[in-house]
Amino acid sequence: MNALHFDQQLRFDSHYPEPELAEGEVLIQVKLAGICATDLEIVQGYMGFAGVLGHEFVGTVVRGGRRWRGKRVVAEINCVCERCDMCQSGLANHCRRRSVIGIDRRSGAFADLVAVPERNLHEIPDAVRDEQAVFVEPLAAAYQVIKQCPIEKRMRVAVVGSGRLGLLVAQVLQATGCHLEVVGRNELTLNFCEKKGIQATPVGELNARPDRDVVVDCSGSPEGFGVAVALVRPRGTLILKSTHAGASPLNLAPIVVNEITLLGSRCGPFSEAINALARRQIDVESMISRQLPLSKGIEAFEMAADPRYIKILLKVAT
Amino acid sequence: MNALHFDQQLRFDSHYPEPELAEGEVLIQVKLAGICATDLEIVQGYMGFAGVLGHEFVGTVVRGGRRWRGKRVVAEINCVCERCDMCQSGLANHCRRRSVIGIDRRSGAFADLVAVPERNLHEIPDAVRDEQAVFVEPLAAAYQVIKQCPIEKRMRVAVVGSGRLGLLVAQVLQATGCHLEVVGRNELTLNFCEKKGIQATPVGELNARPDRDVVVDCSGSPEGFGVAVALVRPRGTLILKSTHAGASPLNLAPIVVNEITLLGSRCGPFSEAINALARRQIDVESMISRQLPLSKGIEAFEMAADPRYIKILLKVAT
Repeated sequence: MNALHFDQQLRFDSHYPEPELAEGEVLIQVKLAGICATDLEIVQGYMGFAGVLGHEFVGTVVRGGRRWRGKRVVAEINCVCERCDMCQSGLANHCRRRSVIGIDRRSGAFADLVAVPERNLHEIPDAVRDEQAVFVEPLAAAYQVIKQCPIEKRMRVAVVGSGRLGLLVAQVLQATGCHLEVVGRNELTLNFCEKKGIQATPVGELNARPDRDVVVDCSGSPEGFGVAVALVRPRGTLILKSTHAGASPLNLAPIVVNEITLLGSRCGPFSEAINALARRQIDVESMISRQLPLSKGIEAFEMAADPRYIKILLKVAT
Repeated sequence: MNALHFDQQLRFDSHYPEPELAEGEVLIQVKLAGICATDLEIVQGYMGFAGVLGHEFVGTVVRGGRRWRGKRVVAEINCVCERCDMCQSGLANHCRRRSVIGIDRRSGAFADLVAVPERNLHEIPDAVRDEQAVFVEPLAAAYQVIKQCPIEKRMRVAVVGSGRLGLLVAQVLQATGCHLEVVGRNELTLNFCEKKGIQATPVGELNARPDRDVVVDCSGSPEGFGVAVALVRPRGTLILKSTHAGASPLNLAPIVVNEITLLGSRCGPFSEAINALARRQIDVESMISRQLPLSKGIEAFEMAADPRYIKILLKVAT
């Protein structure tokens, strides 16, 4: 099959072996897949991953799991054991023995076919187009923010970082009616926010006062983390959405002195993301800059790292 | 008056000017004062403080506030404006315009006399000796841990750092009946824990598994923070109790991946600390290694930094 795989370097291969199905898995023919910041980090060495990349995707079930056959689906990315202490205590996303699709010891979706546990599947309703469905995984991660930290209308909230994830988080927060501001460095994505009616401030023009009730750091950089810390009010909440590989010089003293609550936040509720897309509450399609065939995957990765583009999709099958 | 003051270097002075009383303040004749890690950080340049150090103390009101005259008191350290947004919203400890006794733009208690706002005072009951009362401020900070994060008996809890604050936090946690373990580097203080019936593990012998529901970092070091992060279970809570000056190389990726809640924690409830001491629930007196006269303050600071001692007190008046 065609696959975009990584092992020290990124390669497109038209004769990559097809995945084998394990017990309880289905085979999905991938239609559309998205490149995200985690993919860009992985090709820099994050997670020590080798294999087929890709964890944001929509496709059709072609084998296994009779009730799923022919259905258009997306899939949660954590493949879990159902037996460890985390699984048994309702925290399966934190399974001690999990593999993660296209991220950690499991083949991903930048390929014609991907094998996925049946329990990870979510059917996509007809009201949601492929170009929306491919955003379910990152949009679910954005919804995790308001799941971990309920937002009230009166609250002052800032999103630091106007990248792909920042734009999704900002739209989710906008729907709460809170006082929202996005702080970023990219003129293109700050303009995207303003077009959506979201206040957008270039970081260079920011008057950083520690008066936001909640700040979401989607910057993926130590500098962004510093800006986020500087914006949270005493006893406020800082939600850390993005990681960066390795150790960085950070000063946690303001976290202690201002008694800030810092919440690490990762994957989120797929069903809420699917519902929001079906109701057209979140506009993801305007974020799509280009759709490239899988065979142009290497070029697509370069575009995904280029600030002149927002979302780059890989068209796998049509 | 006699005073131990700092301005680039620590000095004892027997002719230091007495503090002047502002509106709403009382003058306290200091009896006993404690040296803590924050004092040691300040003489390394933390907070850019210059003046009389000292914020853990017990003394007698000698002037101002008629209802307080002659009473034996301790004092909260944050001196607040009562008007800013933080004060008005019930978060006076986070007052935007606060000064902090012996820490930030306000004379401290390593002196014969210290001026303190009347609203900061707490009377010490007869059941509590001076040698206990001098611990009220750090013990209150220890109680803040269980105020911010209620601990249940079934929980697995670790304290990282067996310094002075770590020992107080450990005793507060022990009283909750939780499964408790202290991890530290100092044989003397780890022995103190074991004598109290608290499981104590040298950091070198630690089998770090991410299975603690709650971890309290009292280490004051980036290494200790790393150990603390490695011990928290996914979706667990890490309470950050101590700061270290400046930026340190830290890796926050596990906070995001494991969706850890990190709580910054600073000052705490004085009344709970006083009650616990009156009920003899917390043993602070065994932590006292030496009591030195104020005139030996420089020597006392050296001892406070020496791992062969636990708590060093300064005897000011008797």
